[in-house]
Amino acid sequence: MKTMKIAVIGGGSSYTPELMEGIINHKDSLPVTEVVLIDIPEGQEKVSINTAFAKRMAEKAGLPISVRYTLDRREGLKDASFVIAQIRVGGLDAREKDERIPLKYDVIGQETTGPGGFFKALRTIPVMLSICRDMEEVCKDAWLINFTNPSGIITEAILKNTKVKCIGLCNVSINMRYDAAERLSVSPDELDCRFIGLNHLSVMNHAYYQGKDRILDAVSVENTESVVKNIQKDAEMDAVAKELGCLLSPYMQYFYTEKEALQHEKMEAIGLTGTRAAQVKEVEKNLFECYKDINLREKPAALAKRGGARYSMAAICLIDSIYNDTNDVQVVDVFNNGIIPQLPDDVVIEVNCRIGRNGAAPLASDVPASVLGLIGQVKAYEEYTIEAAITGDRNKALIALLNNPLIHDVRDAKGILNELLEAHRAYLPAFFQ
Amino acid sequence: MKTMKIAVIGGGSSYTPELMEGIINHKDSLPVTEVVLIDIPEGQEKVSINTAFAKRMAEKAGLPISVRYTLDRREGLKDASFVIAQIRVGGLDAREKDERIPLKYDVIGQETTGPGGFFKALRTIPVMLSICRDMEEVCKDAWLINFTNPSGIITEAILKNTKVKCIGLCNVSINMRYDAAERLSVSPDELDCRFIGLNHLSVMNHAYYQGKDRILDAVSVENTESVVKNIQKDAEMDAVAKELGCLLSPYMQYFYTEKEALQHEKMEAIGLTGTRAAQVKEVEKNLFECYKDINLREKPAALAKRGGARYSMAAICLIDSIYNDTNDVQVVDVFNNGIIPQLPDDVVIEVNCRIGRNGAAPLASDVPASVLGLIGQVKAYEEYTIEAAITGDRNKALIALLNNPLIHDVRDAKGILNELLEAHRAYLPAFFQ
Amino acid sequence: MKTMKIAVIGGGSSYTPELMEGIINHKDSLPVTEVVLIDIPEGQEKVSINTAFAKRMAEKAGLPISVRYTLDRREGLKDASFVIAQIRVGGLDAREKDERIPLKYDVIGQETTGPGGFFKALRTIPVMLSICRDMEEVCKDAWLINFTNPSGIITEAILKNTKVKCIGLCNVSINMRYDAAERLSVSPDELDCRFIGLNHLSVMNHAYYQGKDRILDAVSVENTESVVKNIQKDAEMDAVAKELGCLLSPYMQYFYTEKEALQHEKMEAIGLTGTRAAQVKEVEKNLFECYKDINLREKPAALAKRGGARYSMAAICLIDSIYNDTNDVQVVDVFNNGIIPQLPDDVVIEVNCRIGRNGAAPLASDVPASVLGLIGQVKAYEEYTIEAAITGDRNKALIALLNNPLIHDVRDAKGILNELLEAHRAYLPAFFQ
Amino acid sequence: MKTMKIAVIGGGSSYTPELMEGIINHKDSLPVTEVVLIDIPEGQEKVSINTAFAKRMAEKAGLPISVRYTLDRREGLKDASFVIAQIRVGGLDAREKDERIPLKYDVIGQETTGPGGFFKALRTIPVMLSICRDMEEVCKDAWLINFTNPSGIITEAILKNTKVKCIGLCNVSINMRYDAAERLSVSPDELDCRFIGLNHLSVMNHAYYQGKDRILDAVSVENTESVVKNIQKDAEMDAVAKELGCLLSPYMQYFYTEKEALQHEKMEAIGLTGTRAAQVKEVEKNLFECYKDINLREKPAALAKRGGARYSMAAICLIDSIYNDTNDVQVVDVFNNGIIPQLPDDVVIEVNCRIGRNGAAPLASDVPASVLGLIGQVKAYEEYTIEAAITGDRNKALIALLNNPLIHDVRDAKGILNELLEAHRAYLPAFFQ
Repeated sequence: MKTMKIAVIGGGSSYTPELMEGIINHKDSLPVTEVVLIDIPEGQEKVSINTAFAKRMAEKAGLPISVRYTLDRREGLKDASFVIAQIRVGGLDAREKDERIPLKYDVIGQETTGPGGFFKALRTIPVMLSICRDMEEVCKDAWLINFTNPSGIITEAILKNTKVKCIGLCNVSINMRYDAAERLSVSPDELDCRFIGLNHLSVMNHAYYQGKDRILDAVSVENTESVVKNIQKDAEMDAVAKELGCLLSPYMQYFYTEKEALQHEKMEAIGLTGTRAAQVKEVEKNLFECYKDINLREKPAALAKRGGARYSMAAICLIDSIYNDTNDVQVVDVFNNGIIPQLPDDVVIEVNCRIGRNGAAPLASDVPASVLGLIGQVKAYEEYTIEAAITGDRNKALIALLNNPLIHDVRDAKGILNELLEAHRAYLPAFFQ
Repeated sequence: MKTMKIAVIGGGSSYTPELMEGIINHKDSLPVTEVVLIDIPEGQEKVSINTAFAKRMAEKAGLPISVRYTLDRREGLKDASFVIAQIRVGGLDAREKDERIPLKYDVIGQETTGPGGFFKALRTIPVMLSICRDMEEVCKDAWLINFTNPSGIITEAILKNTKVKCIGLCNVSINMRYDAAERLSVSPDELDCRFIGLNHLSVMNHAYYQGKDRILDAVSVENTESVVKNIQKDAEMDAVAKELGCLLSPYMQYFYTEKEALQHEKMEAIGLTGTRAAQVKEVEKNLFECYKDINLREKPAALAKRGGARYSMAAICLIDSIYNDTNDVQVVDVFNNGIIPQLPDDVVIEVNCRIGRNGAAPLASDVPASVLGLIGQVKAYEEYTIEAAITGDRNKALIALLNNPLIHDVRDAKGILNELLEAHRAYLPAFFQ
Repeated sequence: MKTMKIAVIGGGSSYTPELMEGIINHKDSLPVTEVVLIDIPEGQEKVSINTAFAKRMAEKAGLPISVRYTLDRREGLKDASFVIAQIRVGGLDAREKDERIPLKYDVIGQETTGPGGFFKALRTIPVMLSICRDMEEVCKDAWLINFTNPSGIITEAILKNTKVKCIGLCNVSINMRYDAAERLSVSPDELDCRFIGLNHLSVMNHAYYQGKDRILDAVSVENTESVVKNIQKDAEMDAVAKELGCLLSPYMQYFYTEKEALQHEKMEAIGLTGTRAAQVKEVEKNLFECYKDINLREKPAALAKRGGARYSMAAICLIDSIYNDTNDVQVVDVFNNGIIPQLPDDVVIEVNCRIGRNGAAPLASDVPASVLGLIGQVKAYEEYTIEAAITGDRNKALIALLNNPLIHDVRDAKGILNELLEAHRAYLPAFFQ
Repeated sequence: MKTMKIAVIGGGSSYTPELMEGIINHKDSLPVTEVVLIDIPEGQEKVSINTAFAKRMAEKAGLPISVRYTLDRREGLKDASFVIAQIRVGGLDAREKDERIPLKYDVIGQETTGPGGFFKALRTIPVMLSICRDMEEVCKDAWLINFTNPSGIITEAILKNTKVKCIGLCNVSINMRYDAAERLSVSPDELDCRFIGLNHLSVMNHAYYQGKDRILDAVSVENTESVVKNIQKDAEMDAVAKELGCLLSPYMQYFYTEKEALQHEKMEAIGLTGTRAAQVKEVEKNLFECYKDINLREKPAALAKRGGARYSMAAICLIDSIYNDTNDVQVVDVFNNGIIPQLPDDVVIEVNCRIGRNGAAPLASDVPASVLGLIGQVKAYEEYTIEAAITGDRNKALIALLNNPLIHDVRDAKGILNELLEAHRAYLPAFFQ
């Protein structure tokens, strides 16, 4: 009988039930026999709640899946077939710092884009590399499905610095497909959408329906709904999409409507709403209250309030395609290898790939000239970010920030760098040796 | 006997005496026999003052150069060996609009960088292409030395759309060489400086002195003097240079110290100083008062107050090298042709070139990774700018502005576009057909 | 036969034709035989144009009025029955400084309210006192009708420091009466409006029509027209009037909608419009072009573009009432004498007065509690302003600015004080002894 | 044997131990036999901690004082000789709203000055009047010592609307005396300081030492220490004091250095510090941790971190002087009764008073002209605030805000009014009938 062990790093995440749901939904194609939720001591309460809840979910589905948790990472990883990583180094308290400190300089504080994402990367890369060192030893054939944000940067750091087979993933492209389908009033399943760019900076430049590219129709329709729940959609973004002729990752509004986004963030930070971290804390608190309920045996609807909707769909579909060598097409984060000729081969991009037992092979694509400059600029930022995270070199860190399109003055770059390095000192040993 | 006719488009420019000085200084190597100053009716008063002054300069130098002016462009260009272009479409009044209107949106208004430079390009490209059509007919073998700003964009528009042999030129690199020499306490003549980038976005990444690259020494020295007189140096820019390890075009401070630069510009616009256009009007008024003085027979010192110092040096050296096939190295604006691999071959970059009878051949170079993203972003802006200027397409114009690093919100892009198109309507027929 | 000499200080003002029109209109009640326009050498060109034009106006009206101008002030004032003062010390160039320099500190620059008006007062008070010294000697029985702004402050400085019989005047209350009439759809002549407050800070708290107070009806109607042409009406001001239950001097919008007004002024200063001084320069230039036309024999309509509409009506009516001892009621600036109990007797307020041969006697009034605090605050500012102007004491000047409701931080007060003292140094000898 | 019952409304306040300390210190002159701490159900935990701690303090002091708490206000008040009120309606959560919402409009949010204090007053006045109704019935001869902020407004509302014998109190003047003594290097006890103004808007205009007024010496010395711990002193305030010639309540820096104060508050609200409410929550949490310690038997030093230092000194000295009819001079908040002639008799001011069995009799004083305008403006705001609180009339509320010197635009006034009324709806029944 076939067996499959899935290890989840950051098993105490509030997304874990969504993941469990995906595993259950794929019961016919994926012979999962063991799920190990791995976390750190600070996450023990949450991971134990998740474990109990996941057990109830499996039980209700009538599946003989062993679910357990451990704080011993190496032990948990041992002999896993797939490892899913969804960690947040420093937790929501660190996120709040990433969000608030840049705002003091009139710079957007956001956890994936801008200086917030930069500091998330600095804290996370060393931890993820350390996890990969463990994987190289205890489950060297496992695939690492990385959801940890900033997903593209983390994936590139892993691919460049370890031997782990890693694929980066994000739920934005799936949600954009649903958005495009809604605009065109067709079923998402019938729509063949093509993406190109970087993680959180990708565009859908083609949307084939019954063989015909309908992307220009799609951009002509306005859709007031936000593609992801954690970003309040700016009303001008549909106009930008129309001008550019492609649909845009919602995170691109930080670049195209920066002033509005900054003003919105400042009002939340000053007022009673608080930044996104505070809102997520509240959502999470309520979610775990739900999860504790021993009568709850399936994913609660409230989970959709997080930005991570359709997360399990993305992750488990990817595992399924690898495991079953399906060769279908999914949008993931992989090495460029010439797809965007203006970028080096060994940088990670987000693009449609054919998925099979050997992983993800990117499909040829064409990048709209209108966004190529921005992609190049942000990729430069990403490269310096990875270097800075690994070396702890303040010069690299400053150059990274100078390359970030949301930073407009070296004075801000220096001020933010100094304040946030200090604020996250405990998580940035490389910078304080 | 050898003869050489030089035609100057925009002969009424206050820089013309500087050019004349260059011609005189090169009397031994350049057999200039005729200088024709060409201008439009609005410039007649100035060009006639310049003509009289240039005659006095030639006379004092004892040179038999025929100097005259004409408002008949085709006649003036006829059979010229070299054509120097230094025009300002719309004059300083248009410049003031370029400077002031963006400031209303908290966006830097500057005549070469940002939306100011964008509108200067929109006004200028059609005029320069029209000049080139004339050249194709009446002096098809002439070299066009283009000083008209934004110099890189204008040069690329010409090279891509006409058959004229055009080389773009700027006085910044010469001034940066003098600056580097001062930092290193050596003679500028002994310093072999290497530049790479775009016009007004170039870096000096090497500075060889007696065979040794001294660039890191140069960036370690502070120099409070501004490289060009029209830009007040930001105190942080030397720190940026040190971090990046290369000396930077002073125009790059609009990107690296944008907030300070914006604040400085706003204070000038609000207060009694006025924007640069008003200051230049005053300087020009005084210069032409000088030039009128029939006792003045050489370039007055006051001319150095303009940003264009060492302009004649750059222009006449270039003509000399072409004419005499010297094969020496100068920094000019030419097609990329693979020098920066991330950019297409047929875009104009600014780089050291070997100059000879066949024009300028770029030397291999290495672009610092730290500025490559910015160069790519700005080049994308430039490409859309040229397309917009030629087609009058508002969509291209908007995409150009969205690609400009000084624009941070599509709302500003639209507002500035609408206001400035209207303000310059008379000079933008392609947009109002 | 009766004779009457009217002397006009600042006779080169573009308002002079309006005044002349008033004199002509009152030909039946006022036996004006001589009009002397007095100005300083810098105003000679304008005053001579005005003189010629006024002569043509008198001629057309068939009146035997002698009109002449002089630069000899004492001579001009000699034996005048009425002296009208309408001067602008430093001219429109000084006004532009008053307007632009405060804006650098994000403080409204306006020529009567705020620090602009403060500096206008500092420059003007010494000059007006010197004029009064002359009057005390050469026409000691003459009435001085003061229009010079800030009218209330200037009038108080005169009344407190000289023996001249001075009444302050402003065209705002007449215009507010027309505005109220329009709101109520009645004739202005039938409306008995009561005003109370300070110059440029007065409210109409009663509007009697056929014996009934209609003020609450008046404030319930919106009127998008601005009361005076030089102030663009803020849309919220009608709402404020409704809340307060009285109509407000349009200058009060600087207090009640300060942020909007500041933003509006900044946009004009940054953009192509320029501040009000630049606009008035343009209007004046055009007016004097008109006035020069020897065929022009009556006040041109364009004069209404200035803020001073109905100026002649106010001034000549006042002279008429004094001369003919009519005892009718007009709104003028006089000593308080208990009308506003919270203020000292010897400060100037703006209020309905009975006008006769002995001057203006204020009518009892009630000040709305809602504006009394603001009136007291501004009066404190005015007192310190007068003291500072007379003594040249920087401490008094700073305290004046700290009492101005448009100044919000001592840092701004000091910065503006230092910059504007320096800018107006030539006109402020008391501060630079 | 004499007995004295003291009732403390808001007995769960963290200041209660300080009060207890005062009672103990005055054991020889005040025969306190019963202390009743009164609070509402939400305050039960805190008031019970305070009660236990106060008992330990009395025990340690060897005093036979009965200490108890009750949630039954009428019962607690019954037959009290003195009632001390120190309540915070809505607690620190309401304070955080008062602080944060105005900042969204770029308006200072502060709990006593500005719109924050306005809303505190709206919430508090109805509750304090209700307490006074109880007092009128169950302890009609008791004195009410009011510390509840905004102290002057609350006291005036009580004096105008009830029969309760109320004296308002604040710890600022005592602290200013200590500050002046430090500046002059003398003992505070030897310094006879005179104050005049309103609560949180008072100036020390005389400081007699050995019969000589040393106030000008005092303002000439800088003292970087803040007078009260909850306000970070602005460096410019000593310069303002010097210009005005008197020492200023630290709360006046919101008026004289408003921009700096606003910027400081915004940075705290945006960044990690949080507004003062969050900081006080933390301090209180720590204080109550201390108070719980059964070994703690006297006031902990940490209490001085709050802004209320020397609070017990002020309150108990006042009670002592009334009880023992000492006729000494203290600074309290009482009806004006002609002391400031520009204000009505029946408004509350803060001034030196002679204290005896009949309460507080204000001493004649002179208000510096330099602050009289501000005092009048703020008093107008206070009058409308009291009217609004009692009537629930939005028009009065809006006029109150328009009279507050920290509000600069009716748009902000309306926005803040609407948002804060909604936010505090539960505490503002008069506005939502």
